[in-house]
Amino acid sequence: MIYLDNAATTRPNAAAFNRAQAFLGENFFNPSASYGGGFLVHSELERARATLLSAVADPEKFELIFTSGGTESDNQAIFCAAKRGNAVTTAGEHAAVERCFNELKNRGVEPRYAPVKKSGAVDAEALLSLVDEKTSLVSVIHVNNETGAINDIAAIARAVKRKNPRCLFHSDGVQAFGKIPFRLPQEVDLYSVSAHKIGGIKGTGALIKRRDVALPPHIFGGGQEGNARSGTENVLGILCFSYAAQEKFKTLSADSARLSALRPLFLSKLGGAFLPLSEEGSSPYILAVSAPGTRGEVLSRMLWENGVVVGTGSACSSKHRYSRVLAACGYDKNVLDGVLRVSFSPTTCEEEAMRAAEAMNEAVRRFKEKL
Amino acid sequence: MIYLDNAATTRPNAAAFNRAQAFLGENFFNPSASYGGGFLVHSELERARATLLSAVADPEKFELIFTSGGTESDNQAIFCAAKRGNAVTTAGEHAAVERCFNELKNRGVEPRYAPVKKSGAVDAEALLSLVDEKTSLVSVIHVNNETGAINDIAAIARAVKRKNPRCLFHSDGVQAFGKIPFRLPQEVDLYSVSAHKIGGIKGTGALIKRRDVALPPHIFGGGQEGNARSGTENVLGILCFSYAAQEKFKTLSADSARLSALRPLFLSKLGGAFLPLSEEGSSPYILAVSAPGTRGEVLSRMLWENGVVVGTGSACSSKHRYSRVLAACGYDKNVLDGVLRVSFSPTTCEEEAMRAAEAMNEAVRRFKEKL
Repeated sequence: MIYLDNAATTRPNAAAFNRAQAFLGENFFNPSASYGGGFLVHSELERARATLLSAVADPEKFELIFTSGGTESDNQAIFCAAKRGNAVTTAGEHAAVERCFNELKNRGVEPRYAPVKKSGAVDAEALLSLVDEKTSLVSVIHVNNETGAINDIAAIARAVKRKNPRCLFHSDGVQAFGKIPFRLPQEVDLYSVSAHKIGGIKGTGALIKRRDVALPPHIFGGGQEGNARSGTENVLGILCFSYAAQEKFKTLSADSARLSALRPLFLSKLGGAFLPLSEEGSSPYILAVSAPGTRGEVLSRMLWENGVVVGTGSACSSKHRYSRVLAACGYDKNVLDGVLRVSFSPTTCEEEAMRAAEAMNEAVRRFKEKL
Repeated sequence: MIYLDNAATTRPNAAAFNRAQAFLGENFFNPSASYGGGFLVHSELERARATLLSAVADPEKFELIFTSGGTESDNQAIFCAAKRGNAVTTAGEHAAVERCFNELKNRGVEPRYAPVKKSGAVDAEALLSLVDEKTSLVSVIHVNNETGAINDIAAIARAVKRKNPRCLFHSDGVQAFGKIPFRLPQEVDLYSVSAHKIGGIKGTGALIKRRDVALPPHIFGGGQEGNARSGTENVLGILCFSYAAQEKFKTLSADSARLSALRPLFLSKLGGAFLPLSEEGSSPYILAVSAPGTRGEVLSRMLWENGVVVGTGSACSSKHRYSRVLAACGYDKNVLDGVLRVSFSPTTCEEEAMRAAEAMNEAVRRFKEKL
């Protein structure tokens, strides 16, 4: 099997998983327990927190709250930071951000959506024009999960803060963390990350937060995570996240460079039936293409039968025929229907990529034969 | 090691864990993916859902929403059901319910707290007197997590509905599910359960809900869980939960009977230094005792050093010196200081229980020597 749907979820890192499992097997105690076993688990969680946080941020200025995943992180950032006035986001967000913004209306906060460019990156000027003195939160996805477009969130956050210094800035970093070389600048207040996109397991994520930003909980209870997020900690998921991240960050720049070099080879192998939607400068991990006149969903299933796994866009929006985000990029229905999202992993080798491209060409050929 | 802190968390069921891990290892796909691998994972999640739901409820009348744990389930039940007027709960709730009720004040809903009796069970008449035509939610814990007192939630829910048929009824069933023989009656609208209290792993739970009750999400996003709870499903945790529950429910009545028989033996072995706080008719899984004039926390650490693991009450409230719930039961500080919560598992054998009781007696003796 050639697995190229790594933006949907990754194969768990076996070494990280086994190490986390071995720890939990011996130390299954509740991390809040006030005896030795509890302290031991608690310490290992704190080590995991420090590892993950220091990978992208200055631990003096930022802290990290474990959550059940990127979606929960986004929910906490948005609902707990956007309490009044208006909140600004982009038309290129993951559903986890978009649906929260839609819900803000019902909570007395006006949601505002900035348009995206053809690449999927936000039109930063248009975004800025939506920010005013009543804006309580701005949220801009770091790496677009469908096209891979990278938003320069450092520059955008800086410009937002110049216009309204009291407004908070959040970014969904799920497709960036552990993939794109990046350090959190002080202008970014809140940053969501997820474990299962980088070799962790599903059900764990974190919200990175500036220490001097007060954020109420989204989940109340026993006061875990320094009262910021209650519920017994997902010890296995958290440790697996941290162990997997350690691996990723070791080779992050090299992996990114290698996948960048693989991209033109892959594209040149892809026949003329495919139109690349991802632009130059996008994340090397995500490549959106379309074979106009086909159906991505059908191609994806044909590819699955042939041992090549490629998704149709955001797995989280698979119930809708057309991608909301790609539609916002300005593509017509003919293009939108034929979209495939090829998403790589650091272990994807050239031979696999070439075979996948051939299989994609073959799938289009067979699709058109059937018409 | 003799582990008697099973109400805080249980040792993961190894067979269930290995089976879930084997599945995930082969099928790590995103359950929302629209190709074969996604469907396969999705089907296994649906099987898990059906297993867990049918263990306690009629699947025609109820449905089950997977969450990140009992705490999140309680948060969704409370914040999404108590939208106006007042909401009624008890003084014997877990922090996951208590803190949500405290927060309701800030959201324009008046929280009301019914007193508990000495056993920790709610004073049902007092609770009913707090319910009026403006009550939108009543929440009553099923099995008190500190004393094991069982609330007759079927009878209470029936009485509540007679007084206000439009009010919703929720129960935190975390210490009941997989332990106490019980079927959900139609008067209970919402019921929270947790995986790691019955051999699952930390970070998974569920909210069981009457199908005809509309409940908005607490976490918005990609629309997983029939739009009721978004976020990529915690596949490992969910499968492990279901496989572990299958085991538990097979022997649930026999386990419950055996632990009930063990209780008087354990209590008679415990020296006169210990006052039992749990009353007759409580859950056989939880036994709260106190050695007045000692400190439970110190005893618990001494026991840990001797290979006996016993908690001091709710692990989730370990930051506070006195248990809020036991204080509400009417115990004085001298008693509250010396509390230990002994919580059994179906695998606890008589010999372990006897040795633990001896170790507890010895710990009190040594504590008093040091004074």
